[in-house]
Amino acid sequence: MGLHTTLTSLLGIDHPIVSAPMGGVAGGRLAAAVANGGGLGMVGSGDLDWLRRECALARAGTEKPWGVGLLAWAIDDDVLQWVIDQRPAAIMLSFGDPTPHADAVRAAGIPLFVQVTTLPDALHALEVGADVVVAQGAEAGGHGEGRATLPFVPAVVDAAGTTPVVAAGGVADGRGLAAALMLGAAGAMIGTRFEATPEALLGDGERTAITGASAAGTTRDRVLDIVVDSPWPHRFTARTLRNRFTDAWHGHEDALRFDSSAKAEYRDGVERGDPDYLPVWAGEAVDLVTDVTGATELVGRIAGEAAHAMETVHANLGGS
Amino acid sequence: MGLHTTLTSLLGIDHPIVSAPMGGVAGGRLAAAVANGGGLGMVGSGDLDWLRRECALARAGTEKPWGVGLLAWAIDDDVLQWVIDQRPAAIMLSFGDPTPHADAVRAAGIPLFVQVTTLPDALHALEVGADVVVAQGAEAGGHGEGRATLPFVPAVVDAAGTTPVVAAGGVADGRGLAAALMLGAAGAMIGTRFEATPEALLGDGERTAITGASAAGTTRDRVLDIVVDSPWPHRFTARTLRNRFTDAWHGHEDALRFDSSAKAEYRDGVERGDPDYLPVWAGEAVDLVTDVTGATELVGRIAGEAAHAMETVHANLGGS
Repeated sequence: MGLHTTLTSLLGIDHPIVSAPMGGVAGGRLAAAVANGGGLGMVGSGDLDWLRRECALARAGTEKPWGVGLLAWAIDDDVLQWVIDQRPAAIMLSFGDPTPHADAVRAAGIPLFVQVTTLPDALHALEVGADVVVAQGAEAGGHGEGRATLPFVPAVVDAAGTTPVVAAGGVADGRGLAAALMLGAAGAMIGTRFEATPEALLGDGERTAITGASAAGTTRDRVLDIVVDSPWPHRFTARTLRNRFTDAWHGHEDALRFDSSAKAEYRDGVERGDPDYLPVWAGEAVDLVTDVTGATELVGRIAGEAAHAMETVHANLGGS
Repeated sequence: MGLHTTLTSLLGIDHPIVSAPMGGVAGGRLAAAVANGGGLGMVGSGDLDWLRRECALARAGTEKPWGVGLLAWAIDDDVLQWVIDQRPAAIMLSFGDPTPHADAVRAAGIPLFVQVTTLPDALHALEVGADVVVAQGAEAGGHGEGRATLPFVPAVVDAAGTTPVVAAGGVADGRGLAAALMLGAAGAMIGTRFEATPEALLGDGERTAITGASAAGTTRDRVLDIVVDSPWPHRFTARTLRNRFTDAWHGHEDALRFDSSAKAEYRDGVERGDPDYLPVWAGEAVDLVTDVTGATELVGRIAGEAAHAMETVHANLGGS
């Protein structure tokens, strides 16, 4: 059963489900598997070598539409041009001003997704000509900011007029997808749920950590960026699974910045695969992620659950 | 058009809409107006004099069901017994361990609502025999904790089995109510939207501040509790509109605790109605609240919007 929205029409896909372009995690196999299930699979950002390999895997794995997500604050013009030349079905710009890059994507006729975390940024995305605005809440895994998805999405929908809005953050099953559609979104972007697939580029330890974790076991801070001297813009924190290391440094990121022995301790811990140190990005919807399932099957399952949720509630609509 | 759920059946109401028992704001006139619209109106907590007056106004204002919300951490046994003796249609216990009070409510045969902010607390609410679990996200106005409504509600629904769950936090219109139902909730509790009614116990300055505010203009912290030496338990912060005073003290609550001149400055500012100091509790859904409307009409409007959202999305369900 398909569920038709302005997003499925724009992209020619069966289900209004987009897999999040999780950096280093969402490679070509995951994107292809999601595409084969009828959603839009997205390859995450990486350097040119990584993108070459993963885009080749996506192309080899599916005949259906797949896209690429890039970090607006970190884009190299050569990388952007190379991605455009691959003719993906969509390019998403996230985290930072899309202005310097939007025209090149639009001139190529590739649907431009802009992910936003505030209402002013949503308005700006519309100004630069976004074809789809992705409204991301702070319950999302990985990088983000402070809004909550449930009240943020309808506010963006009201601002967006006829431009499709995709809800991101907090959706891991068909109930969440159906909720997103009720809020006026044309689809949902799903990250954490797709980490628990064999196609995600994660080790078994990370996958097991995700299926066993609870939302209370997540934190949002800058610890895992600062410990590796990552230049992520300060305004974007990241939601990750808590472990001994994040618990020790949460709220003390400024001190961590100059603590070379803590950084060395972290590198050693990660190298030996110690769960007290292992970085795992995950959102609050991790409560709902308890099994590892193939991404192709998962897309159909989520779409079916959404249809079921809608049928069930709709059946209870009384007469006037 | 009614929308039937386990909540409407339990309470004998028309719409699965509950007005939040906002302390000092949700008096008897608001509860009665919501009840007359077909929702469950809730009188907020206060001292016995306040409750006597407001429960009398609720009773005088409607023949339909209305309830009372009490703060679990602050309950006086005499007050609880007095409330039970009024035979409200529901009693809600929020913020703190409901154990010492749950049996008295249940023994009286009054439906017991327990509001929770974490999954362990939801499990505990079920153990003490809650008839309804209210799952509150951090986007809510007023006191709360750290979860986001969209992923929190389905996790509580999965734990609650056949016990109805009500979604609280981030819902201000029918789109949010429809989303809550998709998540598996049996209804939504709505606060901020009902502040912008003539029946809410707010001054015109506060009402105007709410209809003009944006979610980015809210903050979650302990400033407005600490400045008045309120004994609220430390774990619960409050979402309020930002103003010059909250901006100055956000993140510095510990210093404020011992700053008697700042406390005096605050009292003076509030007394002269200065918006730089005026305390206004509001949630992130304030983006969606732009007009003042009577609470009775509002209930019907929200129910109609929810039905419309469901009909619209349902019409796009394709064939199999």
